[in-house]
Amino acid sequence: MKAVPLVLTGFGHVGRAFFSLLREKREDLERRYGLALEVLAVGRAEGCFYAGGPLDARQISQAGEPWTSGNPAWHAGLKVTDAIDRHGGRGGCLVECTLSDLETGEPGLSYVSAALRAGWHAVVASKGALVVGLPDLRALATGNGVALKYSGATAAALPTLDVGLFSLAGARVEGIQGILNGTTNYILTRMGEGLDYAEALKEAQDKGIAEPDPAHDVEGWDTACKILLITNACLGTDYALKDVHVAGITGLAADLVRSARREGRSVKLLATAAPGRTKGRWTLDVRPSLIDPSHPLAQVNGTEKGITFLTDSMGSVTVTGGRSNPRGAAAAMLKDIINIFRPAF
Amino acid sequence: MKAVPLVLTGFGHVGRAFFSLLREKREDLERRYGLALEVLAVGRAEGCFYAGGPLDARQISQAGEPWTSGNPAWHAGLKVTDAIDRHGGRGGCLVECTLSDLETGEPGLSYVSAALRAGWHAVVASKGALVVGLPDLRALATGNGVALKYSGATAAALPTLDVGLFSLAGARVEGIQGILNGTTNYILTRMGEGLDYAEALKEAQDKGIAEPDPAHDVEGWDTACKILLITNACLGTDYALKDVHVAGITGLAADLVRSARREGRSVKLLATAAPGRTKGRWTLDVRPSLIDPSHPLAQVNGTEKGITFLTDSMGSVTVTGGRSNPRGAAAAMLKDIINIFRPAF
Repeated sequence: MKAVPLVLTGFGHVGRAFFSLLREKREDLERRYGLALEVLAVGRAEGCFYAGGPLDARQISQAGEPWTSGNPAWHAGLKVTDAIDRHGGRGGCLVECTLSDLETGEPGLSYVSAALRAGWHAVVASKGALVVGLPDLRALATGNGVALKYSGATAAALPTLDVGLFSLAGARVEGIQGILNGTTNYILTRMGEGLDYAEALKEAQDKGIAEPDPAHDVEGWDTACKILLITNACLGTDYALKDVHVAGITGLAADLVRSARREGRSVKLLATAAPGRTKGRWTLDVRPSLIDPSHPLAQVNGTEKGITFLTDSMGSVTVTGGRSNPRGAAAAMLKDIINIFRPAF
Repeated sequence: MKAVPLVLTGFGHVGRAFFSLLREKREDLERRYGLALEVLAVGRAEGCFYAGGPLDARQISQAGEPWTSGNPAWHAGLKVTDAIDRHGGRGGCLVECTLSDLETGEPGLSYVSAALRAGWHAVVASKGALVVGLPDLRALATGNGVALKYSGATAAALPTLDVGLFSLAGARVEGIQGILNGTTNYILTRMGEGLDYAEALKEAQDKGIAEPDPAHDVEGWDTACKILLITNACLGTDYALKDVHVAGITGLAADLVRSARREGRSVKLLATAAPGRTKGRWTLDVRPSLIDPSHPLAQVNGTEKGITFLTDSMGSVTVTGGRSNPRGAAAAMLKDIINIFRPAF
């Protein structure tokens, strides 16, 4: 049995789902992979939960709220790096699931950098940290001989990076197309069924699918971050968010979606990465697109996501599905951890 | 740069495509993965091509035929194990692409066993060897600390094992459904377009999609082998081919396919693995099935293949596509080799 120390940053929906999943999967992880994953610290901006041994969810929150006052496991002012230092050795894994800013990458960027510098692997769900810092973080990971994985930031339970990097190893990726955001796909699916934009958005918000402030999703930025990260990983490139042409679905005319449907087609917020006109440069864009029923992503409806890779030697490979909720995201992060530490198979 | 010695058994369509692909990808493999793959021997029943260094395709065949008589690289009577022994060290990789018998597993089974015993990894396309010998081969691989991979035998360029074992690591697979044979799917697709069974089969044979003797495909055995291997790998079980209930598409009534189509549905040769009525035992079957247009595999037409995994924590994940030809199969074997030898990522 290999004991793997984890430090978790961010204790929102995904962080909590990760904690529950770890508990649920404990025996299975030991039996199938020989891994004992133990959360040693949970970091927040103001301090850390830390008790010198594996933490239980009850030491962190009570009634769904973080429990700091009077909690012996809460150490105000203790930093994530301190917790890592106190543990001593290299070779643990940071599980980063804060909501990081897309301009600065913080707070995730600092957490991830510090962990990699300390010789810890990092499994990251925070898009901000990656969009801002990926080239530097990759170099840090390589320099320190540790892994940096981010399925949680690239459509989570829908395998995207895995397929591009592992299942298509040796093939040259010649184009990528994806429906990468469940919220906008839900809204567009419902618009195809007769709702107008405002109604579909309201319904998505009422169901907890869309955020109260849906801008990040409906304006296309979430999709843009994902296609950027996937493209850079699969091609080994360093495109920046500003290189992605982004048009969202805000206020999309219901007529357009309905008339597409009458013609047997559908409107999807499609992310595309393809070789551009300038030699060696790719074009990355996100925009509402009409697709035919024979398109491999045509049946991706509701909150589902999907991605198609075009390759030179394996043809076109499409992956669809994967649960779009915190449990799915937590499962994607757990998957990355297993794939860092498992024995060869 | 890591030099990886390979020994190839079988030099039919897939073996030749593998050779070409290696040459085409040489620079790319060095640059992207730091790997220099070198074919040291090509084994046949009667002897080996072996020249004490990396072989070139011209040393093996001329005008598309194996070149033995008068060929200084041909050694009648030399065994694959001799070639491995002559190389010396452990840690090379056998690339097994013979057509092995489904009853005995030979000749592949002997090649793979010998390679694993010699401390060589094995990448296997031969279904016979795996269907007959998988439990023993797995034990041999584990005991010798080497990898046994077989994407080439499990739908090739369509990632099936990768997704089940890597992309879904940590999730519990609760059901598998697949369209796993391109030939039968082509015939059924053309029947949906109006041909009767005999016409569709003839067309597939004329196009080189179906074999002159199509029994292995149309009677469902190829599909049965694949669902068996995928299920055993993902669940860690040891079901045998006799545990799979198999019904093929031989002589399927054209009326049935056409009337399904009129109702907006389609007929597919579906392989299913699902928990059975006996606790702990799964039911594996292969049979022509009617599927609705909303089924995740409904758009898998022509020679395409597809697979759906149902899981506890990641929802349902479907993969479709992947080139169904010798180049696609060769690319799948190359992918397995890369994933055995590449640096951590």
